[in-house]
Amino acid sequence: MRTEATPEPRYDLTTIGETMLRLSVPVGARLEMAATLDARPGGAESNVAALLARLGLRTAWCGALPESPLGRLVANHLRLAGVDLDGVAWRADGRLGTYYVEFAAPPRPTQVIYDRADSCAARLAPEQVAWTHLRDTRLLHLTGITPALSASCHAIVVEAQTRARQAGIPTSFDVNYRAKLWSPSEAASVLAPLMTGVDLLFCSRADALRLFEITGSDDEMVTVLGERMKAGIAVMSIGEGGAVAWDGSTVLHAPAVPATIIDRPGAGDALAAGVIYGWLGGDLALGLRYGTLLAALALSQSGDMVVTTRAEVESLLASGGGIIR
Amino acid sequence: MRTEATPEPRYDLTTIGETMLRLSVPVGARLEMAATLDARPGGAESNVAALLARLGLRTAWCGALPESPLGRLVANHLRLAGVDLDGVAWRADGRLGTYYVEFAAPPRPTQVIYDRADSCAARLAPEQVAWTHLRDTRLLHLTGITPALSASCHAIVVEAQTRARQAGIPTSFDVNYRAKLWSPSEAASVLAPLMTGVDLLFCSRADALRLFEITGSDDEMVTVLGERMKAGIAVMSIGEGGAVAWDGSTVLHAPAVPATIIDRPGAGDALAAGVIYGWLGGDLALGLRYGTLLAALALSQSGDMVVTTRAEVESLLASGGGIIR
Amino acid sequence: MRTEATPEPRYDLTTIGETMLRLSVPVGARLEMAATLDARPGGAESNVAALLARLGLRTAWCGALPESPLGRLVANHLRLAGVDLDGVAWRADGRLGTYYVEFAAPPRPTQVIYDRADSCAARLAPEQVAWTHLRDTRLLHLTGITPALSASCHAIVVEAQTRARQAGIPTSFDVNYRAKLWSPSEAASVLAPLMTGVDLLFCSRADALRLFEITGSDDEMVTVLGERMKAGIAVMSIGEGGAVAWDGSTVLHAPAVPATIIDRPGAGDALAAGVIYGWLGGDLALGLRYGTLLAALALSQSGDMVVTTRAEVESLLASGGGIIR
Amino acid sequence: MRTEATPEPRYDLTTIGETMLRLSVPVGARLEMAATLDARPGGAESNVAALLARLGLRTAWCGALPESPLGRLVANHLRLAGVDLDGVAWRADGRLGTYYVEFAAPPRPTQVIYDRADSCAARLAPEQVAWTHLRDTRLLHLTGITPALSASCHAIVVEAQTRARQAGIPTSFDVNYRAKLWSPSEAASVLAPLMTGVDLLFCSRADALRLFEITGSDDEMVTVLGERMKAGIAVMSIGEGGAVAWDGSTVLHAPAVPATIIDRPGAGDALAAGVIYGWLGGDLALGLRYGTLLAALALSQSGDMVVTTRAEVESLLASGGGIIR
Amino acid sequence: MRTEATPEPRYDLTTIGETMLRLSVPVGARLEMAATLDARPGGAESNVAALLARLGLRTAWCGALPESPLGRLVANHLRLAGVDLDGVAWRADGRLGTYYVEFAAPPRPTQVIYDRADSCAARLAPEQVAWTHLRDTRLLHLTGITPALSASCHAIVVEAQTRARQAGIPTSFDVNYRAKLWSPSEAASVLAPLMTGVDLLFCSRADALRLFEITGSDDEMVTVLGERMKAGIAVMSIGEGGAVAWDGSTVLHAPAVPATIIDRPGAGDALAAGVIYGWLGGDLALGLRYGTLLAALALSQSGDMVVTTRAEVESLLASGGGIIR
Amino acid sequence: MRTEATPEPRYDLTTIGETMLRLSVPVGARLEMAATLDARPGGAESNVAALLARLGLRTAWCGALPESPLGRLVANHLRLAGVDLDGVAWRADGRLGTYYVEFAAPPRPTQVIYDRADSCAARLAPEQVAWTHLRDTRLLHLTGITPALSASCHAIVVEAQTRARQAGIPTSFDVNYRAKLWSPSEAASVLAPLMTGVDLLFCSRADALRLFEITGSDDEMVTVLGERMKAGIAVMSIGEGGAVAWDGSTVLHAPAVPATIIDRPGAGDALAAGVIYGWLGGDLALGLRYGTLLAALALSQSGDMVVTTRAEVESLLASGGGIIR
Repeated sequence: MRTEATPEPRYDLTTIGETMLRLSVPVGARLEMAATLDARPGGAESNVAALLARLGLRTAWCGALPESPLGRLVANHLRLAGVDLDGVAWRADGRLGTYYVEFAAPPRPTQVIYDRADSCAARLAPEQVAWTHLRDTRLLHLTGITPALSASCHAIVVEAQTRARQAGIPTSFDVNYRAKLWSPSEAASVLAPLMTGVDLLFCSRADALRLFEITGSDDEMVTVLGERMKAGIAVMSIGEGGAVAWDGSTVLHAPAVPATIIDRPGAGDALAAGVIYGWLGGDLALGLRYGTLLAALALSQSGDMVVTTRAEVESLLASGGGIIR
Repeated sequence: MRTEATPEPRYDLTTIGETMLRLSVPVGARLEMAATLDARPGGAESNVAALLARLGLRTAWCGALPESPLGRLVANHLRLAGVDLDGVAWRADGRLGTYYVEFAAPPRPTQVIYDRADSCAARLAPEQVAWTHLRDTRLLHLTGITPALSASCHAIVVEAQTRARQAGIPTSFDVNYRAKLWSPSEAASVLAPLMTGVDLLFCSRADALRLFEITGSDDEMVTVLGERMKAGIAVMSIGEGGAVAWDGSTVLHAPAVPATIIDRPGAGDALAAGVIYGWLGGDLALGLRYGTLLAALALSQSGDMVVTTRAEVESLLASGGGIIR
Repeated sequence: MRTEATPEPRYDLTTIGETMLRLSVPVGARLEMAATLDARPGGAESNVAALLARLGLRTAWCGALPESPLGRLVANHLRLAGVDLDGVAWRADGRLGTYYVEFAAPPRPTQVIYDRADSCAARLAPEQVAWTHLRDTRLLHLTGITPALSASCHAIVVEAQTRARQAGIPTSFDVNYRAKLWSPSEAASVLAPLMTGVDLLFCSRADALRLFEITGSDDEMVTVLGERMKAGIAVMSIGEGGAVAWDGSTVLHAPAVPATIIDRPGAGDALAAGVIYGWLGGDLALGLRYGTLLAALALSQSGDMVVTTRAEVESLLASGGGIIR
Repeated sequence: MRTEATPEPRYDLTTIGETMLRLSVPVGARLEMAATLDARPGGAESNVAALLARLGLRTAWCGALPESPLGRLVANHLRLAGVDLDGVAWRADGRLGTYYVEFAAPPRPTQVIYDRADSCAARLAPEQVAWTHLRDTRLLHLTGITPALSASCHAIVVEAQTRARQAGIPTSFDVNYRAKLWSPSEAASVLAPLMTGVDLLFCSRADALRLFEITGSDDEMVTVLGERMKAGIAVMSIGEGGAVAWDGSTVLHAPAVPATIIDRPGAGDALAAGVIYGWLGGDLALGLRYGTLLAALALSQSGDMVVTTRAEVESLLASGGGIIR
Repeated sequence: MRTEATPEPRYDLTTIGETMLRLSVPVGARLEMAATLDARPGGAESNVAALLARLGLRTAWCGALPESPLGRLVANHLRLAGVDLDGVAWRADGRLGTYYVEFAAPPRPTQVIYDRADSCAARLAPEQVAWTHLRDTRLLHLTGITPALSASCHAIVVEAQTRARQAGIPTSFDVNYRAKLWSPSEAASVLAPLMTGVDLLFCSRADALRLFEITGSDDEMVTVLGERMKAGIAVMSIGEGGAVAWDGSTVLHAPAVPATIIDRPGAGDALAAGVIYGWLGGDLALGLRYGTLLAALALSQSGDMVVTTRAEVESLLASGGGIIR
Repeated sequence: MRTEATPEPRYDLTTIGETMLRLSVPVGARLEMAATLDARPGGAESNVAALLARLGLRTAWCGALPESPLGRLVANHLRLAGVDLDGVAWRADGRLGTYYVEFAAPPRPTQVIYDRADSCAARLAPEQVAWTHLRDTRLLHLTGITPALSASCHAIVVEAQTRARQAGIPTSFDVNYRAKLWSPSEAASVLAPLMTGVDLLFCSRADALRLFEITGSDDEMVTVLGERMKAGIAVMSIGEGGAVAWDGSTVLHAPAVPATIIDRPGAGDALAAGVIYGWLGGDLALGLRYGTLLAALALSQSGDMVVTTRAEVESLLASGGGIIR
């Protein structure tokens, strides 16, 4: 428990996880025929930190990056967004994870090819983590991707939650199941303990079903999810950018905000960022409105990271986007 | 009144107003992250002149441009389209107005940032106008943007109308309210006298409501607009590229021609150009068919200026586009 | 008739016809304003050969190309796809046919400007054809474009069919009427004899009506087509990527697979390739499923030639694309 | 001889010849691997007309163009430059000549692939020429390319010179030998009569040697050239952008202006334009200074057509470019 | 004088001045024909702050920016580089200065078109400056551009120097004469007092001659410059990236480091940054080696701002770049 | 020794080694700021095979590629060039090696960042190699990169040489020392045995000095190299594209062919390809002329792989490139 004497934390949110280089071709083009690739960083945790920084919060990302132009490329994008990088573990050697994307053009779905094995993120060990930075925060945000990267990454997540619990720091957790990293049953057995007792739990409806065999209506599912995991709040994303949230007693509904889909990846991270934004301000309903609007913005922009400002979000909400029932 | 002895005017349409440099990013990109910008000129009045020149009419634009590569860039596009530039006021100093565009990608609307203050267009004084060119025409076209630019620009519009009236030259006027330049009430008080008595009056339904508080059905609105302003003909644009027209007695309806939307700006100017084309040929109904088709072409092309030919327009109309009821 | 002693043919499919350089502008841009053009080869026959090669079949294209960078550009794309080019007639002089494309952006339809007159393909004479390659195959594929190119090209098609018939090689024929090359009545009189008795006949519903005045329901039309032309199998494409097939007794239905339309040209060739794929494997129903899925892939990709793999096609079919009733 | 009573001609220069579409790849890229091509028009005669129009003269080009987006693309560039196109022969059918360029990157020289056979320019017949426009001029400019295109084009050049002579209109002629169109001996026998007696004769040192076997020092060569052809003035280009001129009695020397070479084609046309500019103003020495500076500008800009203004040329000359000895 | 008790300043360098949006075309292209423009920010003062931040120093820029995507575009680039923006004066209205660049391609020199009048930078008033940030530094850096922007900007420079003097903060000053803003004599009379007594004075040889009529050998000129202006150290840039420095007694020589010239603007700012880097570390000779190497890097990179790291600079110096005699 | 009865081998040259994806930024751009990357494959061994295939030889590359769009991208480029890929080891999992390139812009040298660890090439085991293909050849080509990749790759090279020796197949070996993979002493001890007794040995002067401490004049060095390694022929590259060759008795000199440098990587492979071309035809001197010309072409083209034809090479040689003394 935080006591009266505790000084104001340095950050509103800290997070750790892998940020990779995303290489993609335009819609309609095939990767195997590419002559040029669009290059941008992306990572579930840093996407959240970057978006919250753009909304004016103080956020830090504490992952690992190689001391190379590629590592700096990632850091440049995060620093530009306003994310504090003092806690980054710069590695003299080691590689940056990369992934290649072909965007969906039905009948073809989005195709992602990961080349992330043995990255400096996967090799990061608990003793290399900037724990001082990571815990000087109002909220520690983690995802279910990190434990799948390596044993040491799993250990980092466990230790981060333990330290947060001991220091009375609230935590959030986004399940983010990645089928190319592990099976649903592996994921479920590893993630369930990590999800248990967090203050904010994010999980897609597909993952709730696939990993934890939770079924029923949206309301039933999010309630079961929250109760089973003893979460303070459980948020379940449904469809493209919509969500339901269970606050321990009731279920709030946030339908998806209509959007032109330009670039799908990152919408779930944007939803989480929005909910966290509201939660940090003590207003979950506002958070859901922010979250669904930010998810819509994520869909309608190129890149994983959402570029916006608080003024723009407020203006769009005022003109009718983001409704809570 | 033109008499028998009057020689054939040199131009079918002359116009004056500001043409700016438009700098834009592709759909889905954010301006604050831009590394390259698409550059094209755009201006409500010169858009009309350029499109009519492409349809084979003799048109002239008499605005101001700086003697610089930027001024020449604008002139190049207009000359390419076939617009006569003999009446351009080339200014040894002075800046070119610019505007920056992010195209709509819902939930984001189109965002336009104007940087047009103190342009050489806004500084243009009546005594610098090539009146000889401007009045040697079958129709003088003006818009409600020009009076908002500066006092001297307002004076130019007043003087242009006075001279046209004295010389018996018909005039058209497109309201084109710009919320970033003035308030609706300012606009209404300045524009109403300028709209009064014109031969062809163009106004969007939104502006008719916002500036002049005209309400009712489309038919009622366009009739009130035409009668109140004592216009020969009043054309009210409705929705994306559709229009209704009041010819002094009856209302004609031209539904929007279905279009793939690539680039919105310029559709209203295209509608005006089409109506003027028909009017100059003595056939308002044909003008409406041209206008709605040209508006659809404007929506489906990159850039403010519509690139087409009379043969293409005739061919598209023949194959079913542009219906008048 | 092939006898027991006949060795396995070298190719699964051989074909001959014109491959051109396609120069296009992006959707929303006008050709007359182009500063850059996208350049790719395209040709109805080589599109089929390239796609089947990508699916793992042994195919050869035996057309004519100039010994120049432009001829090599075409050959590069076909060789990349896996098409055997040993039978190409390299011409020391002669030009490569080109065509310019503006993609549809309603209200504008796709506009194609051909510049193919007097190409080295049109000049190809029967005595220059690599007959040895062309007949060493399990299926000879021809289209109704080639006879329209020149008298010598017409002679090539006649001779190819005669030689195939004599050697007991099955043939397929895709009508592919081109309005810019000849009139429907000219085409009908020339093509009917060439269509008669082929093993696989492809014709769009529009062409069946326009050239042969076949009317009725889809089932009636494809049956009349097949019976009148004494075809082994008749396949009629309907709408965007759907088809019906008459196998001599019954009609199979393959509805269009929903697709995002990026680039229309090539969808018909993809349908033919899919049907041929199934037919060569002895499974017409599978061929229709392949064909409609490949047509959908063609629509959703840039370029005439479909880039895919058998594994991708199988995976997409397994997840629900391509239904036969 | 022009008499006192002759009205001032409408144009300062008129010309006729082929303008083609130039398709090129960037330096270092190979055409056979191209995925995009840069597209611009180019033609020796229209390059001269366009550059002189940019310098403020009244010029007209009277060649043939197809009524198509490609024909309009060419016309757009010329109209933009200020060239009068009233005398263009728009052809309902016929193709536009094209040429493909790989720029020099030693050890590779510039490679040009022409695809100009049977263009609407080559098909143009004398009776289709706008003679009225062509002769209403202070100078008629022709080149040695046109007679090589076709018999009818040869006839046009002969008739143009005959008409000019009869009307007392001065003529200029630029040899511009094209090795891909004819042999040196063919060219020499056809061109010599056309070069004889012109007021302004342009010929490169290489062509003077190759076609007419003129040898010796630069001074000797240009003098022999001028005297043999009975030219008023003979200008011989030497090296990259330099020239010597014989004015009937003495030889003027204009060394090349140092330039960064971006795009070679068009430098000779720029030299001719500069000399003509000076000659029309009665100052050959100024013309040579203009010519060598414009040739340097041509080398240092992308595209065949030089984009500049008289003010820029004057400013560059004032700061030291373009020296005559 | 700073006393023992003074806490360590927050920044190593602070600066104030105008940062603009730079819009440019590639080498060989003309601005008046541009269809796309490269967009990057640039400003003499922020270029220095950004480069020093990349080298690991703590720097802040305290200029004015509009609250708009354009203002954020500038801030994004500076934040990415690591410049602290806490002292930025964000203006609710006002425009961002822009400038357009055509890079040199001899015989054409670099052409710059400024559109900076009435920018929010020029309108900035002393009472809007974040003086607290500006003075919390080890070195205050100013340039001779700022006083030319407006009377209030001149007042800001005067007040900044006064406050620095009172607080015992060292100052540097880079003359940076801009001929498009004022005449040499105006500049000399305004700048001389501002240059007098600074710790580090930067001036090009051309400006020393043009503004202050200092002549002689490089050694004589830099000595006169330093002595006349009572500077602690005077650095005079000579040619492309070389420099001489007078340290109050002797002259150090740093020849230009050979460089491939890609993009000239920013080389002088890079030289200043390098010298400041050495000076802050107490090693002027090292500073000159850094400065000439950084100037060479500036010439060899696209953009005004140099992208490098201390490790890269050290590595290049170790391998032989940057020699001091 | 090959006997009379041996059938003609299927290939002129076979090779094995790693082919990677090369991702690069344009000259003047920094990798850490990249928004797009140019993507092409490159590999020392496959560069040789591709170039020889373009010259008309039958070549095969037998390396490992992942069954993914990235693996297909590499295969596409090689197939396009005409390289036989029947011996490729397609791996169901495993990654493709990548490398990132910033081209030299002095004072910056070319910077290459390898991300090749644990690639499917490095993991390839001898038992997975298509030995049947690899030995059905007139020449087996190997490089000193492969042994540095992994123990299994080293074993592949050893086994390949053993099998070749047993079958009487000539071998060539290009040292190609890579400082990022191992130290000079490690390389020397591993490579010396592999270089011993080969028919064709390639080594740069820098590597001869660095690895084997061979010094002296070029003639002395290449002679020592050849004699020490008991090579049939030793070729030592000197400077940018030049070479000396020792044929067992005398030294031939091939000065570098002057070239515009566009893209350095691949020049050494082009030299080797040219020498091999001549050697296979029994003419070492011709090989050196080919080699130096091909190296110059490599420098003057974008990409590692040289795009040319035998006709172009012959034409360039005929016009003066590539001199042997």
